[in-house]
Amino acid sequence: MSNPINLTNHCSVTEATDNTWPVYQPFVNAIHDKIHEKDVSGTGWIQDPLEQNSSVLFELNWLAEEIKAQADTLIVIGVGGSYNGTKALDQALSPYFKRTDIEIIYAGHQLSGAYLEQLLQHLEHKNPYIYVVSKSGTTLETSLTFRLLAQFMKTKYGQSYCERIIVATDGNSNPLRKIASDNHYRCVSIPIPIGGRYSLFTVVSLLPLAVVGIDIMELLKGASAASEQLSNSEIEHNLAYRYAILRHEYYKKGYHVELLASFEPCLTTLHEWWKQLFGESEGKQQKGLFPTSASYSTDLHSIGQFIQQGSPILFETILSFGQIEGDVVIPFDRNNGDQLNYLADRRFNEINCHAKEGVIRAHVDGGVPVIELTVNKLDAYHMGYLCYFFMKACAMSGCLLGVNPFDQPGVEHYKRKTLESLTNSVVHSMK
Amino acid sequence: MSNPINLTNHCSVTEATDNTWPVYQPFVNAIHDKIHEKDVSGTGWIQDPLEQNSSVLFELNWLAEEIKAQADTLIVIGVGGSYNGTKALDQALSPYFKRTDIEIIYAGHQLSGAYLEQLLQHLEHKNPYIYVVSKSGTTLETSLTFRLLAQFMKTKYGQSYCERIIVATDGNSNPLRKIASDNHYRCVSIPIPIGGRYSLFTVVSLLPLAVVGIDIMELLKGASAASEQLSNSEIEHNLAYRYAILRHEYYKKGYHVELLASFEPCLTTLHEWWKQLFGESEGKQQKGLFPTSASYSTDLHSIGQFIQQGSPILFETILSFGQIEGDVVIPFDRNNGDQLNYLADRRFNEINCHAKEGVIRAHVDGGVPVIELTVNKLDAYHMGYLCYFFMKACAMSGCLLGVNPFDQPGVEHYKRKTLESLTNSVVHSMK
Repeated sequence: MSNPINLTNHCSVTEATDNTWPVYQPFVNAIHDKIHEKDVSGTGWIQDPLEQNSSVLFELNWLAEEIKAQADTLIVIGVGGSYNGTKALDQALSPYFKRTDIEIIYAGHQLSGAYLEQLLQHLEHKNPYIYVVSKSGTTLETSLTFRLLAQFMKTKYGQSYCERIIVATDGNSNPLRKIASDNHYRCVSIPIPIGGRYSLFTVVSLLPLAVVGIDIMELLKGASAASEQLSNSEIEHNLAYRYAILRHEYYKKGYHVELLASFEPCLTTLHEWWKQLFGESEGKQQKGLFPTSASYSTDLHSIGQFIQQGSPILFETILSFGQIEGDVVIPFDRNNGDQLNYLADRRFNEINCHAKEGVIRAHVDGGVPVIELTVNKLDAYHMGYLCYFFMKACAMSGCLLGVNPFDQPGVEHYKRKTLESLTNSVVHSMK
Repeated sequence: MSNPINLTNHCSVTEATDNTWPVYQPFVNAIHDKIHEKDVSGTGWIQDPLEQNSSVLFELNWLAEEIKAQADTLIVIGVGGSYNGTKALDQALSPYFKRTDIEIIYAGHQLSGAYLEQLLQHLEHKNPYIYVVSKSGTTLETSLTFRLLAQFMKTKYGQSYCERIIVATDGNSNPLRKIASDNHYRCVSIPIPIGGRYSLFTVVSLLPLAVVGIDIMELLKGASAASEQLSNSEIEHNLAYRYAILRHEYYKKGYHVELLASFEPCLTTLHEWWKQLFGESEGKQQKGLFPTSASYSTDLHSIGQFIQQGSPILFETILSFGQIEGDVVIPFDRNNGDQLNYLADRRFNEINCHAKEGVIRAHVDGGVPVIELTVNKLDAYHMGYLCYFFMKACAMSGCLLGVNPFDQPGVEHYKRKTLESLTNSVVHSMK
């Protein structure tokens, strides 16, 4: 059986091949034991996504069926890890031009009054359910938006409005759990040890993904297969660790930026999820690779120039897929005005694949190292595998860097300063 | 009268204030003369957008009215500068939840067969017009997609299909112009000296923007005002040059990445346009700031941690707006379960503004320099002003760096390598 993912290092700049593995192996062993014993301070991630969800899957599917029957819109209120993974897989695995009977709208991920005003108008003609996700139950963006939308629902549906609101928060007592209890909203629990960016395989994302018709069992099976295959501490047999070591080697060689690129437009929000995963896990103690992304081939016509000939500060990780559902044939044109008849009867996905080959050659020629991750197929199973792969690689990578990949102390600064600014203005307005 | 844009440098790391201006002034003078004489090799940009479009505006509005009357979908086929600016302003100035009678769908910006297959299915039930944009008339993505969609239109509409296709290309003879002529497609001309990323104020973007109801006269008036106000070579009186100098100073101090951030979700594709503008203009000779972007406050919960405490390689340019159409009030809640009644009766845009203040303080405290560009209002006039401001700043900035801001030699590498890969495979398949 072929591996769900393969890795190719397209540059000889680094010698992070078999040569360096013996050097890394003792460190990797120690980190491996640590992250698998869950004794890293802060929060770890889910070990076997399939097994750990077995007891909640029934409830979850039941809720999803209810929402599909009662609503045409699911408003997911949440920020960061509370919606990034959901949005990533919703986009990656749903049709480009939606025909489903229900759509997800995101809110509470920012504070734009213009957006919310228009959302309220839009919802006048819809039958929404609300799914509000906050682990701590105190995030400002989420709380304010939920306050607004809960009031909207009350006005629209009267006392039965509470049946259309579902809350996801952790098992501890917190303001959101208390609100749910006081108002008779149904509540599902986010497993306590899981941080937002590692929560993709929990109820956080599984419920909304089930609602829009994504096969969450396949997703969990893929993640579960990854969990098993990537539990080996031997670098040679653990692709996630090999990826972690490679990017660490590039970092040590002075590359400051890792650019994740792929050739399917449905993957742009997966890039965003990946950016949070790595940026929030590693950007500490003035260290870490800055995670950025590009959607090819379109961005080759925008930042492509910089990648090819600009400041040599970045390396690329290219995601490619062996098999993609859906394709069209290039038609023959009798007039051949564009001189492209030599490509007639070939398929766009094949041309896209040649574009990928072209990019890799051009960038490597230009001195940009390229790591290629080839995923067998773009489907729920392989996306589950891939996301778990990234989580595992991220935990190893953060630990190699000497930071805790499971905390995010820096995010608090912005929250504190915002509250200071708000509080000062309240005091000021009361004078 | 207040300035349409104001600039604040929120960090004392650089002394790029009045102190350095006298040092820069002679260089700025020389560059100013050069870029205004249009003798920079390659292509320049449009000088007075309002005046230069005066003769085409009538035809353009007439075409837009026809499309609105005949179509429910406008397919814009183009890549890079042929669609980035259009998409940016379409998103920035259109409602979040579209209610207009016509929508733009983008194609030809990538090669995904899955996307195109679904697009063709989607178009079965639509009445589209096609607007194909390619300056050279030979871009692979655009040409292949146009070939496919032109055939689709022929099948759908028979011989009259040609009335529903409009071509924008430069005035020279090229394959696309010949195809237009042979098939009786109407053709509009992109001014020859303008490169893709500087073509926002030409027919390239003006036609589709007019179709979706954006006030292109206001857009051009804003750009024209900027063109006049930013034609002063004195740094003290030219905000675009001050921005160019500041970012050049940060670059010289070792910052490698400029992160453009804003607090309105409708601006994410404006960020993409900005990334092409600066990345393609400056990323040459192993030089240049890597342009990246974030949408706040959501991304503070993803890459915020890295910005606050990660590798100190970036500075931020924050776009803020004095006035934004649309807002909602935070409701009072008798139960006050979230403890947020102290914010009741205040508006979301005000809270968003406090979040901005919080971010600036937190990032400056964390050692991240912040340039704040405050635009008076988020409307067509000010977006025209802002985009022209960026173009002018970019031309100055590129020249300060010692590169030609109007060419893009590196993009050719990828194109050549892709063609090589394609040609080899064709030869191979014929054997």
